[in-house]
Amino acid sequence: MAPILKGEVDIVIPTIRSLDFLENRRPFFEPYHLIIIQDGDPTKVIKVPEGFDYDHYNRNDINRIFGPKANCISFKDGACRCFGFLVAKDPSGRDMDTVAQHLENLTKPSTPYFFNTLYDPYREGADFVPGYPFSFREGVPTAVSHGLWLNIPDYDAPTQVVTPLERNKRYVDSVMTIPKGTLYPMCAMNLAFNRELVGPAMYFVIMGDGQPIGRYDDMWAGWCSKVVCDHLGYGVKTGMPYLWHSKASNPFVNLRKEFKGLIWQEEMIPFFQSVTLLKECTNDQQCYLELAKQVKEKLVYFEMSFRSSVLFVLTKQLEMSQNFS
Amino acid sequence: MAPILKGEVDIVIPTIRSLDFLENRRPFFEPYHLIIIQDGDPTKVIKVPEGFDYDHYNRNDINRIFGPKANCISFKDGACRCFGFLVAKDPSGRDMDTVAQHLENLTKPSTPYFFNTLYDPYREGADFVPGYPFSFREGVPTAVSHGLWLNIPDYDAPTQVVTPLERNKRYVDSVMTIPKGTLYPMCAMNLAFNRELVGPAMYFVIMGDGQPIGRYDDMWAGWCSKVVCDHLGYGVKTGMPYLWHSKASNPFVNLRKEFKGLIWQEEMIPFFQSVTLLKECTNDQQCYLELAKQVKEKLVYFEMSFRSSVLFVLTKQLEMSQNFS
Repeated sequence: MAPILKGEVDIVIPTIRSLDFLENRRPFFEPYHLIIIQDGDPTKVIKVPEGFDYDHYNRNDINRIFGPKANCISFKDGACRCFGFLVAKDPSGRDMDTVAQHLENLTKPSTPYFFNTLYDPYREGADFVPGYPFSFREGVPTAVSHGLWLNIPDYDAPTQVVTPLERNKRYVDSVMTIPKGTLYPMCAMNLAFNRELVGPAMYFVIMGDGQPIGRYDDMWAGWCSKVVCDHLGYGVKTGMPYLWHSKASNPFVNLRKEFKGLIWQEEMIPFFQSVTLLKECTNDQQCYLELAKQVKEKLVYFEMSFRSSVLFVLTKQLEMSQNFS
Repeated sequence: MAPILKGEVDIVIPTIRSLDFLENRRPFFEPYHLIIIQDGDPTKVIKVPEGFDYDHYNRNDINRIFGPKANCISFKDGACRCFGFLVAKDPSGRDMDTVAQHLENLTKPSTPYFFNTLYDPYREGADFVPGYPFSFREGVPTAVSHGLWLNIPDYDAPTQVVTPLERNKRYVDSVMTIPKGTLYPMCAMNLAFNRELVGPAMYFVIMGDGQPIGRYDDMWAGWCSKVVCDHLGYGVKTGMPYLWHSKASNPFVNLRKEFKGLIWQEEMIPFFQSVTLLKECTNDQQCYLELAKQVKEKLVYFEMSFRSSVLFVLTKQLEMSQNFS
């Protein structure tokens, strides 16, 4: 069986070290195009195992492409991966693994308007339960597929500190749509999305070196993309596929990075829970600009040259999509 | 270990036939009080296996207690079980089974305001993921625990007809809160609730013999109870425990019972999705009366002496609770 969506999928991998793990993923990743974003020191050599189709970018490339605005991409932080989202074009998967499951999630509809108690109704062996409105059974396009992780849990630093030995051993055999109007904490470790539907909203706001807050890059993109999906009528799924998470991060380093964020999130979330976008916003770019405008007006805490970065990224994205097409 | 909540739980069992299955459930059901509602012909003898603590009611009892208003309890229909909800008082479980899981669901908080990607954060081995607002981590009281079923799926007649061989084989190891503002199709086959929080909203509207619509009794109670829970700030959970469902109902009989409902639900659901209750409604009874009032005003299709039945049931309930206390 040919890999599904071959030629249409990019796998973005941010890295500061060896890419030997690719060897284990070879059968699943090889049919697709890899975009490797090297974080940190660009003179360090990152070796990619043979046989993969990839593009490799380091900080020098980011500086070259963005010029004086290169600071809109985080440095020494996983958020650098969103540079990969930006340069993704039309590069080139199906076997039984995480990539295939993400693509299945993205290519099947979502059901954000009513909860199906048997979870994903489009899955083999499942369906809509009685009383599920017929008018909602067609579903809506899926924009985001949020995968989970086993073993080392993804917790915030305070939770890590108090539960150091906790491991996530529960493989929950389900995928579900997060209902419209409900936010969730998006984690970028195991994430896929349809760039044509929500590309701009996946901008990972500036974190890392020199920034006051860390570890909230994906969270921010999660809030933004969920609001945009809810407005445009797209679905966000969470659940499978699972990844095995083997390297625990240091909770005290994390606490230093995130402590401001822990306070700040309590201010941000009510904003994202109540924000409404204008009816005139009919695509992802318009939605994101409108969201940026409201952030500037209403979130005094979160200035950080956010809006200008967003504008710049969008402009660059438009330019690049013109070059590629 | 003593069964949890012994002396505080009623198990309501509607039946038209033998109760031999109780033998298999003995270790789990025996510590609790059973309320057996015999549907259909009251002269038929229903045998309860020895050793259970139970009360047995048949149609004669319903007629005696309700007099001329006895028609507010469905006849020849599973909806008769709501009579059991009404007579539940303070009768008298923990082992590892459905009752224990329902009680665990009901006694631990719910999280309706934000989605936790690891599902129930209060479960052993789980927690809140990063970015989950601290202000929501206390949760809210849980009013409803909706269990699922394996083997014969619970489908509507059209789905049954087109997928006759489908079986639900997927045991999803999770319990989750259905977010605020999202409706779900509630099924009464495997359901537990806290009668002090949402008792009145669990009234199963009249179905069965002589009524134009069947198979929508629990659905109706599900819409009402979810709206009431959302308004009062209580949680509704779905997922485990699972029951094994072995007897498929006849899809053509079901179709005759439910075809009007299949059309009618498409009118009902938008009503329940948009209804808002007055701030002045601060308990379940007030909410339900307000809901009944809006039903009468806005749902022309659904007259069926609904409101007067609701009023009567509530009055009766108040009376009975005074007698018992």
